[in-house]
Amino acid sequence: MKRMVMRNATIPVMLFFLLCMFQGSVQGRHLLSSGPGIRPKPDDAAHFARWLVSQSFWGDLSTIESDLGGAPFGNVVSFSDGTPDKGTGIPYFYLTLLDPTARNALKDQRSSFTLSEYSLGTCGKTDPENPTCAKITLTGKLKMVDGKSSEAKYALTALFSKHPEMKDWPKDHNFQIFKLDIEDIFLINWFGGRKPLTVDQYLHA
Amino acid sequence: MKRMVMRNATIPVMLFFLLCMFQGSVQGRHLLSSGPGIRPKPDDAAHFARWLVSQSFWGDLSTIESDLGGAPFGNVVSFSDGTPDKGTGIPYFYLTLLDPTARNALKDQRSSFTLSEYSLGTCGKTDPENPTCAKITLTGKLKMVDGKSSEAKYALTALFSKHPEMKDWPKDHNFQIFKLDIEDIFLINWFGGRKPLTVDQYLHA
Repeated sequence: MKRMVMRNATIPVMLFFLLCMFQGSVQGRHLLSSGPGIRPKPDDAAHFARWLVSQSFWGDLSTIESDLGGAPFGNVVSFSDGTPDKGTGIPYFYLTLLDPTARNALKDQRSSFTLSEYSLGTCGKTDPENPTCAKITLTGKLKMVDGKSSEAKYALTALFSKHPEMKDWPKDHNFQIFKLDIEDIFLINWFGGRKPLTVDQYLHA
Repeated sequence: MKRMVMRNATIPVMLFFLLCMFQGSVQGRHLLSSGPGIRPKPDDAAHFARWLVSQSFWGDLSTIESDLGGAPFGNVVSFSDGTPDKGTGIPYFYLTLLDPTARNALKDQRSSFTLSEYSLGTCGKTDPENPTCAKITLTGKLKMVDGKSSEAKYALTALFSKHPEMKDWPKDHNFQIFKLDIEDIFLINWFGGRKPLTVDQYLHA
């Protein structure tokens, strides 16, 4: 960082500005201080899972890579489950067909999507593998959404509201909307192993 | 956050303290300002990949989940590829056999490990799916390391130096050391698709 000479009075102002900037990053871009942004209690598995999904904006999407002997292939992707104030629990993706993940899904839909609470900045100094720093894996089928459907229109609103730069991504890269049809939920948010949570409980929380 | 009444003079001091705290989190716990911590140029694929792996301390480990019809199962895990000043490029993990990931690997070693530069705080406001915010997927075989070997001793030093709380994790949870034998490297750190990078180039960077 460059050294700066400044008047004493400007230092608190600059520090406050910097603090706000860094605090914004640490807490995640869409973490709210009230309403849906409040971290539910770990015992409330359905609301906790929905909170973690709606507050997150990127994760790891795994598919089956036939070019690598059927190995599971994880890939960093952005996603959205709705507008910032209203999540649906269903992750939508905007994936280019130039990328292996989308191509894999077109051959074999088996997939999982994994998120860590560590990304939200709400785990403090707790290690990301410590069970009190929550993590969720949604397993199911990764399906391309018909670009002309009303669902596609909703998905694009959801995606672009959380990822403004997406709408300017190159048209010739063949970006398509995908969604995960969830079949199983693996949630860890406290000691004692995975939380019992059905897909129905999750979707209707 | 509670409202606080304080003397004017204490405000800059508190702000500075808070700024340092948040800045530490944003930049990642082991990001250095010189030496191995400097972000290599994207064209230098081997050094870039080694930098991303050595600076990261958690990621997503995918295995094949036979209980879910052979679906790829991602899981948030902590890892280390060496001591903070000297990485090896080989990710070591400390996994409990109570967890599906370790159990999956004992049945089927096919696995991948995925990291995002976004976790390091060096992507700024760039979206995590934007190719200039780097990501890497190491695909290979996830193998348990013999707990009595010299490699296990090294791995524990590497793991505990980056994850101090691990050494106090419950003994009855049957934590074992695993490593990823890398067979393929998928690195994106700029426009233009995956960077050509062999495992040999990566390991000897």
